[in-house]
Amino acid sequence: MEQNIKNNIDFIEGGVCAPTGFFAAGLHAGFKKRKKDLAVVFSQMECSAAAVYTTNKVKGASLLVTKKHLKNGRARAIVCNSGNANTCAPGGRETAEKTCVIVADSFEIDPTEVIVCSTGVIGLPLPMEPFYRGIPKLAGVIRLGDPGHKYYGSHCAAEAIMTTDKVVKEVAVALAIGKKTYKIGGIAKGSGMINPRMATMLAFLTTDANLAPDLLQKLLRQDVDRSFNQISVDGDTSTNDTVAILANGAAGGEPILENTPEAEAFSEALNAVTTKLSRMLARDGEGATKLIECAVAGAPDDAVAHAVAKTVIQSDLVKTAIFGADANWGRVLCAVGYTKGHFNVDRVNIHLGSRAGIVSVCEGSAALPFDEELAKKILDAEEIRIDVDLHDGPGAGRAYGCDLTYGYVKINGMYRT
Amino acid sequence: MEQNIKNNIDFIEGGVCAPTGFFAAGLHAGFKKRKKDLAVVFSQMECSAAAVYTTNKVKGASLLVTKKHLKNGRARAIVCNSGNANTCAPGGRETAEKTCVIVADSFEIDPTEVIVCSTGVIGLPLPMEPFYRGIPKLAGVIRLGDPGHKYYGSHCAAEAIMTTDKVVKEVAVALAIGKKTYKIGGIAKGSGMINPRMATMLAFLTTDANLAPDLLQKLLRQDVDRSFNQISVDGDTSTNDTVAILANGAAGGEPILENTPEAEAFSEALNAVTTKLSRMLARDGEGATKLIECAVAGAPDDAVAHAVAKTVIQSDLVKTAIFGADANWGRVLCAVGYTKGHFNVDRVNIHLGSRAGIVSVCEGSAALPFDEELAKKILDAEEIRIDVDLHDGPGAGRAYGCDLTYGYVKINGMYRT
Repeated sequence: MEQNIKNNIDFIEGGVCAPTGFFAAGLHAGFKKRKKDLAVVFSQMECSAAAVYTTNKVKGASLLVTKKHLKNGRARAIVCNSGNANTCAPGGRETAEKTCVIVADSFEIDPTEVIVCSTGVIGLPLPMEPFYRGIPKLAGVIRLGDPGHKYYGSHCAAEAIMTTDKVVKEVAVALAIGKKTYKIGGIAKGSGMINPRMATMLAFLTTDANLAPDLLQKLLRQDVDRSFNQISVDGDTSTNDTVAILANGAAGGEPILENTPEAEAFSEALNAVTTKLSRMLARDGEGATKLIECAVAGAPDDAVAHAVAKTVIQSDLVKTAIFGADANWGRVLCAVGYTKGHFNVDRVNIHLGSRAGIVSVCEGSAALPFDEELAKKILDAEEIRIDVDLHDGPGAGRAYGCDLTYGYVKINGMYRT
Repeated sequence: MEQNIKNNIDFIEGGVCAPTGFFAAGLHAGFKKRKKDLAVVFSQMECSAAAVYTTNKVKGASLLVTKKHLKNGRARAIVCNSGNANTCAPGGRETAEKTCVIVADSFEIDPTEVIVCSTGVIGLPLPMEPFYRGIPKLAGVIRLGDPGHKYYGSHCAAEAIMTTDKVVKEVAVALAIGKKTYKIGGIAKGSGMINPRMATMLAFLTTDANLAPDLLQKLLRQDVDRSFNQISVDGDTSTNDTVAILANGAAGGEPILENTPEAEAFSEALNAVTTKLSRMLARDGEGATKLIECAVAGAPDDAVAHAVAKTVIQSDLVKTAIFGADANWGRVLCAVGYTKGHFNVDRVNIHLGSRAGIVSVCEGSAALPFDEELAKKILDAEEIRIDVDLHDGPGAGRAYGCDLTYGYVKINGMYRT
């Protein structure tokens, strides 16, 4: 179910450190009891920077500071703590500002070149001490540049931004354009709110391609609408969600310009990274045992297709049916039907698929007889695909979700720190 | 938590049969294995009739026939089967039309005076035989008029429209205006989709007040927006949802006219019935152990208040927190924040309440220290109220939901017929 890639794009190792000139580190600073909880991503040279944020009207204080810093489209460092969201707590704005100053001092850059993010408990004051202790240490590790150091690298940073994610999420690709090779790397976190009052999806992307801030922002926005915004674990939009990208141009060459084949190839490579991270985020949803991918075709346009796909993977009834390996296509059609927008629902075909095979369950919006045993086998797999064809136009879109399980209820109902 | 009632409204017994001239019966006809599955509500005299339907683009065949029959605002009988939704199945339209003819023949009315509804499995053909057997029997029982008959009365009809609801839902009120007493009765069903492929919220209302069809439709539409449309068990909108009301005028007196104190009093009495049914529906949600009522005040207008209330009770994270008796107000504020619409989120107060007391957990969108033991005791009750004050205007609204439990996952993931 890997996406179809036209350009010359290869998945490589290294996460956010794969692109030339980027460094990262992560350690335990003291926001959480034992696990890593403070990460820095740093570029040796100046970067174009872009970000997109939560649409929640309640916004974390760190997010507001980042937004201010990114007004000029420039940044060189990302600092992120886990364990405390710095949201709805006194003095949050000042804490975030001070954190940027510590990063600036330690890395000899300007405080406005720092992107600051926080994820974790809402409503508790974010302590400063762990930043004072942790950030200079991280700067030392990065300056040292020892790949064997226990705090060094993309993996450590990816670990340090996790709340109760079970799986570290990092991806990188190499994109060959002519004789040049560009790299794009990313790390992400987000699992729902496994620890009560915890939330937030974060993704940090790096690239050594050379792009102006405006174009970077535009490509990121376009991409997020078909990658991260198409994920749902539980439909709850956090107060701190942030996706940020730094482009330092270290791969050399002329800047990539808008509406060129190079920009298109870059977009595609970016989408390879963000789609893979999106699938990892959905698969690691709270309590999830399965990834659900819904691919919609035949919609009047792509926007409708994306909306239908997202509605299907958000349906609690679809999610529980997949958990129970029940080929309950009526619930899929029902979710298609209550999606907002104008489209025809009389010619809907539905297929269910996984590595175990594909089964057609609905044609022309009516029941098809199907092999229940095969369907069960298909839905027992860990990655399920639901294909919906509306036969009402050229639009296509996808969304990524997970099953709704006893685990989700337990995690969110039973535990509290 | 009973609503405040200005006019002289009393809850009485009798459900849909409480208003003068209405009769009802329900029996097992054969759509389900053993339980009652066919109901009729009948008025001795002509009625104004009004209905509102699902917004799902996929619509049940019976619903489409009802819509056609109600174009003239007249009806005298409601027939409803459970066990099969008559949706996305071959010949559904013809089956629904034929059902109306059987009712018309048995009750000596016109087929266009029949409202027909179906709830249950999607995608299977609806058999005719149980209608041929059951409807004449129901007509006999109603003609006999013996309150002691095992198939007779509102309770039997309410039972016969249940799918896997655990509780029979019927309500009636008496409204005194001057020397006249009007009655309004209702039955309802809906629990989510306890039996895979089952769905649908249905409510049937009767009144012996005298109202023209247009006014009846208008008052019903207004009411549904603040009662049934403010319920959510799982956010999944069925293909067959229908709320219908019959007004036969048997209480006598002049017609109730628009924009009069009488119309206002009638609206209020209607809302007493529909709110009570709404609370019963939410409390009986699939796997639910608790009713969650969210009351929003201080919104810019009522529409925003209703939207905020509904978003809060739909949040899976709020629902699981209530299940776990966790006073996790951050999740409530988060849901307030991602509600669509324009309003201020910097001055939000949140209280949690039940019969065990009230606790303030958030003031001015910031954490308040609170008694965790008291909060736990409050949230251990079976009816929880979440009060949200936005301090941003005069708008108020409510919504009704339930907790998200292991039971919900089990019901929807584990069972299939």
